Amino acid sequence: MALPGPPGELVPMFEKDIAPYIRKKFKPGCVFRTRTVKMTGLPESCVNNSVKDLLKLEPPTTVGIYAKPGEVDLVIMSKAKSASAASRAILKVEKKIKSRLKGHIFGYDDETLESAVGSMLIRKSMTIAVAESCTGGLISSRLTDVSGSSRYFIRGAVPYANEVKIKHVGVSEKTLSRYGAVSRQVALEMATGLKSLMRVDVCLGVTGIAGPTGGSADKPVGLVYIAIDAPRRRAVKKFMFKGSRSDIKFQASQAALDLIRKNI
Amino acid sequence: MALPGPPGELVPMFEKDIAPYIRKKFKPGCVFRTRTVKMTGLPESCVNNSVKDLLKLEPPTTVGIYAKPGEVDLVIMSKAKSASAASRAILKVEKKIKSRLKGHIFGYDDETLESAVGSMLIRKSMTIAVAESCTGGLISSRLTDVSGSSRYFIRGAVPYANEVKIKHVGVSEKTLSRYGAVSRQVALEMATGLKSLMRVDVCLGVTGIAGPTGGSADKPVGLVYIAIDAPRRRAVKKFMFKGSRSDIKFQASQAALDLIRKNI
Repeated sequence: MALPGPPGELVPMFEKDIAPYIRKKFKPGCVFRTRTVKMTGLPESCVNNSVKDLLKLEPPTTVGIYAKPGEVDLVIMSKAKSASAASRAILKVEKKIKSRLKGHIFGYDDETLESAVGSMLIRKSMTIAVAESCTGGLISSRLTDVSGSSRYFIRGAVPYANEVKIKHVGVSEKTLSRYGAVSRQVALEMATGLKSLMRVDVCLGVTGIAGPTGGSADKPVGLVYIAIDAPRRRAVKKFMFKGSRSDIKFQASQAALDLIRKNI
Repeated sequence: MALPGPPGELVPMFEKDIAPYIRKKFKPGCVFRTRTVKMTGLPESCVNNSVKDLLKLEPPTTVGIYAKPGEVDLVIMSKAKSASAASRAILKVEKKIKSRLKGHIFGYDDETLESAVGSMLIRKSMTIAVAESCTGGLISSRLTDVSGSSRYFIRGAVPYANEVKIKHVGVSEKTLSRYGAVSRQVALEMATGLKSLMRVDVCLGVTGIAGPTGGSADKPVGLVYIAIDAPRRRAVKKFMFKGSRSDIKFQASQAALDLIRKNI
């Protein structure tokens, strides 16, 4: 079998035609099943410590740990005579993982943090708007990567200039000049200000310093404030991220999406 | 030499410590130099046809063609006794490519389309604001991926709901109900409306159907209108993109950035 190189062509061709062909032609005597448990907000070392015993499991059922920026995945893999036996073996391990890491799990398998947040918003019939400065539109873009997001995503605002923060997002000039654009107070006013301008259930305000320039001793590169104004909770959280400009933007978007997940 | 696996750790370690060590230790008798010429807006086949003769060049100087979503790169590679001889050989080929594909080249080597647009805006002392619906914040996010973009990027708006298009971006209710949200007219009003709300030199308006649902016979998935309101030009362009939701979002952002490049 000869296939084209680009993954965008190769992968669907393999999945649609080749895998079923091989399965039919060779009738394997066993099946493999995997289940990916996805977490955010915890470093790899903490996840590792919580499931040390499971990571030592031997075949036919094993657990692997995979860290990516802003996410840690545990992959359970099982080999068995039948699909149902493999699924049962996986479920047993999955339950243990859940009982130990519950609050940090945002989804499974193909789910993304943004699709998990989207499903929650639909389940709760809530709408959302985002005012984001240092993330520059990334949170809005990730939320709208999900098909059907127009059901809950109402408005994104990227008020980069201070004038725009005042005029279009509802931040007060006094707060800006007293505390500076990157402050707990401005993040909160971005969220509450946005909410006062429209009918929407959840509003997010994000401000920070993505770098590599623009930092100071007081407000270093990587400092990000994320505020949420949700029906049951109004809060601001302070974060210190590391890495390149795009690393910091991505980690801030990850923390913001996780803050939504935990507060609605 | 043993290195850690994650590219984010491996690549800088190799570049900072290992490559200089190897170079010093083994003193190679020749040098390699490469130059990447980056284009957008032309399919790979057209670029290929324009440089057919160059793609057949034999060592020590060769040209390769690489297509990615929304971008085609030509990579000139030269092996010579000295860096200056390699650079001279590359420059000769580069001049030929430039003379044939001038208008489509947006940058070289590490430049991105967003950094090229940013450099142009700085050179021309222009500021920019973006109103984007179907791209959901991706254009703003790409523009602000560039360090120093706060010098020219003033405001991003993601007016997903129609009410927000009217209230915060300056689209008229009449235009929306007469032509629909995905129309040439609404794209243009997003750009001109945004411009009327603030002091900024260039405004962009983007509306379309990113799919996979929401399309119709009249307005299929992949249909995107991009409007620009720049000092010397006001225009709307219609595009038909193919692929997944994120493919369509990315291609639309690519076309939008290219439209800025060509009209300021």
